[in-house]
Amino acid sequence: MDVSNDSDSFGETPYAEIKSFFDSAPPLKDSSDIQRKLDEFTRRISLTPETERASRVVCVTSGGTTVPLEQRCVRYIDNFSSGHRGATSTEYFLKAGYAVIFLYRRGTCQPYYRSLPDDPLLECFEVTSESNIAVLPTHRETVERAISEHRSAIIKGTLLKLPFTSIFEYLQILQLIAFSMTRLGPSAMFYLAAAVSDFYVPWESMTVHKIQSSSGPLDMRLVQVPKMLKVLRKDWAPKAFCISFKLETDTDILLKKADMALERYNMHMVVANELLTRKEEVIVVAKSGKITVHRDKTQADADVESPLIKLVVDRHSDYISSGL
Amino acid sequence: MDVSNDSDSFGETPYAEIKSFFDSAPPLKDSSDIQRKLDEFTRRISLTPETERASRVVCVTSGGTTVPLEQRCVRYIDNFSSGHRGATSTEYFLKAGYAVIFLYRRGTCQPYYRSLPDDPLLECFEVTSESNIAVLPTHRETVERAISEHRSAIIKGTLLKLPFTSIFEYLQILQLIAFSMTRLGPSAMFYLAAAVSDFYVPWESMTVHKIQSSSGPLDMRLVQVPKMLKVLRKDWAPKAFCISFKLETDTDILLKKADMALERYNMHMVVANELLTRKEEVIVVAKSGKITVHRDKTQADADVESPLIKLVVDRHSDYISSGL
Repeated sequence: MDVSNDSDSFGETPYAEIKSFFDSAPPLKDSSDIQRKLDEFTRRISLTPETERASRVVCVTSGGTTVPLEQRCVRYIDNFSSGHRGATSTEYFLKAGYAVIFLYRRGTCQPYYRSLPDDPLLECFEVTSESNIAVLPTHRETVERAISEHRSAIIKGTLLKLPFTSIFEYLQILQLIAFSMTRLGPSAMFYLAAAVSDFYVPWESMTVHKIQSSSGPLDMRLVQVPKMLKVLRKDWAPKAFCISFKLETDTDILLKKADMALERYNMHMVVANELLTRKEEVIVVAKSGKITVHRDKTQADADVESPLIKLVVDRHSDYISSGL
Repeated sequence: MDVSNDSDSFGETPYAEIKSFFDSAPPLKDSSDIQRKLDEFTRRISLTPETERASRVVCVTSGGTTVPLEQRCVRYIDNFSSGHRGATSTEYFLKAGYAVIFLYRRGTCQPYYRSLPDDPLLECFEVTSESNIAVLPTHRETVERAISEHRSAIIKGTLLKLPFTSIFEYLQILQLIAFSMTRLGPSAMFYLAAAVSDFYVPWESMTVHKIQSSSGPLDMRLVQVPKMLKVLRKDWAPKAFCISFKLETDTDILLKKADMALERYNMHMVVANELLTRKEEVIVVAKSGKITVHRDKTQADADVESPLIKLVVDRHSDYISSGL
């Protein structure tokens, strides 16, 4: 859940780096189809009176991005992220009356599927003697909830799911989303929980064919991904409420990084996660101070996302009414 | 689908490298549980009269392995593989009367699920007004087949599924499988379709915490994974029928590599895949010569795995009757 890269050098937005990143990126497949879906989605929302919660849209990014090491990609570097945070948060945003654009890594955790086993088709269903497909009683409730809530969100048009795999796809689609959300002004939110690569291999400097291992050890040089958070905030979606995430395995580094991200990228909030405790608690870092949000330990199935999204929604309301 | 690494230097089995690989690997979780499952599975099969097809077991490996770049793994290098080849082949092996140990990468393609959409729960099911869960008529047949055939294989005990993620887990479990299959002699087969990393970062030389990007570009040195194919064939399972895979994006390199693997690792067969055409045709390389296997293009839903597994099973029969 580290959407930024962490160069300690402050400084201006690196437009040249960003231009060369996008110029060198492979063309986005289905970009016109994605554009069309986004336009329909945001246009419908923007027709809702601003006084209603239903006029709010959050773009939740989820899962890790890959960095191809070869143009015909056999090998790539991946960032660990199950997508659990993004999928769970999406459910709570929908519950809070938001429309959600769920920008997720292919194959990662989906909204409403958290409580299902790894292989629901195998573990939750059986074919009866009359060759009907039946849900095993033990899973009936969770499966029914998953299917009905998930389908209804898609059908009502409050949930738009857009998949990505590589860092190139992720940032290209994020830009399309940001531009199409501008019409929503401060009702738009970015909740950037995806684990975005800090390093990449520029497409043009990439080998076309599979790297051969015949020549001894493999030495690789990766360059830093430009600071897109800064551009998102400053140019792509200057009116939107922006929340980024920091994930570290070392708690000492974590808060220092969160403070830096808040300042450097001018985020409204930074959610600080420590890898091992991130499902129990997170620290929300804002200009007004730090708040530690805990999971309700009195309930077995309570998520830390429940109080987290409540806090985020309240702050977003303040932001909208402040008219900034 | 490149289970070997490709050092062009011939030479003896690198026992020292292999020892240091296993010594430095993080301990395998649930190893006793995996061992128990394997013992039950292979013992039951070994009680079947050798004259019957049912006494044959194939270990199908599927999907790509990851190479962690940090001990508390946030970043890792992955090998592209959907797992489609392994999952599809597993179905045809079961159909041919084999018992299958399916050693698969978590999250990759599963047997019987090929023809289902990406998100079957969302796209194939609906909750009826009586809040029953019903399959949409359009998907009824595929869903019913997926659930019934998959479940029956698990329940009959002809399919054992074992998941892995990292190169360390993969090779540790593969070794357990090989040892427990020795009791089956030549009735055992290894069908090594997994895309195994050629390079890895030795665990002890790995940074414990997340790599920080504050210090400019990232330079990495990875070392070659030891030639496990050679050890599998020579020491772990000397009587088993062994098939390895080569995947290349460059056809010129492909056959040269396949021939080398056949000779160097003493495989019984090497299946050569070209990345872009691998679902249409593969070239089976054996000491007796090369055979190109094509998908039956007259049928829309025919797989190249159908004729491929037929050929493999015939050759395995010859191998068993030859008493080698």
